[in-house]
Amino acid sequence: MSVIYNRVALIGLGLIASSMFWAMKRGGLAGEVTGYARSAETRDTARRIGLCDRVCDSAEEAVKDADLVVLCVPVGVMGAVAEQIASSLKSGATVTDVGSVKRDVINNVAPHLPEGVHFIPGHPLAGTEHSGPESGFAQLFDGRWCLLVPVDGSDPAATAKLRSFWEALGSNVSEMEADHHDLVVAVTSHAPHLIAYTMVGVADDLGRVTDSEVIKYSAGGFRDFTRIAASDPTMWRDVFLSNKDATLEILGRFTEELFALQRAIRTGDGDHLHSYFTRTRAIRRGIIEAGQDTDAPDFGRAGPRQP
Amino acid sequence: MSVIYNRVALIGLGLIASSMFWAMKRGGLAGEVTGYARSAETRDTARRIGLCDRVCDSAEEAVKDADLVVLCVPVGVMGAVAEQIASSLKSGATVTDVGSVKRDVINNVAPHLPEGVHFIPGHPLAGTEHSGPESGFAQLFDGRWCLLVPVDGSDPAATAKLRSFWEALGSNVSEMEADHHDLVVAVTSHAPHLIAYTMVGVADDLGRVTDSEVIKYSAGGFRDFTRIAASDPTMWRDVFLSNKDATLEILGRFTEELFALQRAIRTGDGDHLHSYFTRTRAIRRGIIEAGQDTDAPDFGRAGPRQP
Repeated sequence: MSVIYNRVALIGLGLIASSMFWAMKRGGLAGEVTGYARSAETRDTARRIGLCDRVCDSAEEAVKDADLVVLCVPVGVMGAVAEQIASSLKSGATVTDVGSVKRDVINNVAPHLPEGVHFIPGHPLAGTEHSGPESGFAQLFDGRWCLLVPVDGSDPAATAKLRSFWEALGSNVSEMEADHHDLVVAVTSHAPHLIAYTMVGVADDLGRVTDSEVIKYSAGGFRDFTRIAASDPTMWRDVFLSNKDATLEILGRFTEELFALQRAIRTGDGDHLHSYFTRTRAIRRGIIEAGQDTDAPDFGRAGPRQP
Repeated sequence: MSVIYNRVALIGLGLIASSMFWAMKRGGLAGEVTGYARSAETRDTARRIGLCDRVCDSAEEAVKDADLVVLCVPVGVMGAVAEQIASSLKSGATVTDVGSVKRDVINNVAPHLPEGVHFIPGHPLAGTEHSGPESGFAQLFDGRWCLLVPVDGSDPAATAKLRSFWEALGSNVSEMEADHHDLVVAVTSHAPHLIAYTMVGVADDLGRVTDSEVIKYSAGGFRDFTRIAASDPTMWRDVFLSNKDATLEILGRFTEELFALQRAIRTGDGDHLHSYFTRTRAIRRGIIEAGQDTDAPDFGRAGPRQP
């Protein structure tokens, strides 16, 4: 591996930024990596654990002379951060982001960026339920997709360079149009997260009835919902507010289907349930075959199968 | 470890029964284990892979002289199986089951069992999305809960022996009343499964719009829904039909909460979303502390964290 960008600035130092830093170090992809976080506590933590070659006390200082600036903040503040750094950006620099929503980020960031700066929005489809500067690890992007969403006038050479950077971080890279991106992630990520949050909230409401039993006996499905529903609250609030239309569209369809299944339970229509569950099982096979999950039993936590 | 039951009969040879067999072998817990499955193909597979010391061609033959009979069939056919084996049961034998619903199983099984046979319903809270005789492994129950649901007149000594058996299989054992059991699992397992099935079905409906992209880009939450929604269709059809009231009750509460969150998205009420997501995050901590999941990043599939 070799240096792809001489200087990279990470704005926001959470799970994604810290994972990018460790993956850049693993591959030797950047000459120097600067970092900035709004919270002094986060900056102190970053300095303590060696996250970034240089932690700066302002975003403007961090982006100065950077060849690549990565906005790793919640999507609700992307616009404000772009406005703040705009006049400090080097001519010819590439600005990208890692937000889970693209149309809203484009609308809020693009107007602030000066001529001569390349804006190429991005979205790595990777994460865990942990957040903060200490949650990152170099392997987060390995084998995961990163979607690039070039806007009108994105420079092809700058896009190609950013693509090679994400590939060197371990990702598979694909390009997608912004609105289509927002619909796809509403299905694969945003609606599932809201549903998981909801189910965990319902269980919490029932806490007085079932006491700690809900937690104690969580192995059968609920456990995995709690993992999803443990993700960063600020990030997800912003995602839902920024991808409102697509999320509400998918949730509307979800509610329709749920009502149909509830009705089948109420009326005892076992055939409807069985054929529905058989259909969904096939989708799982598709995901295994696409290499986006392992087929290991019990979520990879159990030992080897007996002979 | 030492033999707890001289002869154990497993009726139904799927994930749970095959895991019980390998765990019994691991611990030397049974003198001889017989097995029966309705499908000749399953019996052939069991014989080929050495599942059970003796695979029988009828349930009656399998339970003959058995000290413990474990009903490992879908809950919808528990009653029919109990009727079939009733007259072949040894006096003093214990009959248990592994069904995910308890009130319905008790109503359907108990009337068939003769005097002098101990009926002690059970439910191991363990599983994977795989099914069939080849899906079992000895570690499935390690550290997981098994709930015993003694009925009126269950013999305390027989219950204590069954408890020590499940503990030797690796489980933690707790006792619970049938209706309470059915409510707790509706929250922790049945409703989450139906919701996961629904979301995966919605994604499948959108297949024509988003083509294979839903599968390709599934890493962000949806992937875990597909794992849950890949579980055995027959087992789950029976679960929902047998635990109808509790499941519909929980789904009703779920829908209420989901509508409230959808409304918050539509009206842009970020505070409501943020406080809801903060509350659900705390539940996750409870589950980690209760030892029912690991805190490893990226579902345990990623490598070690960087220094």
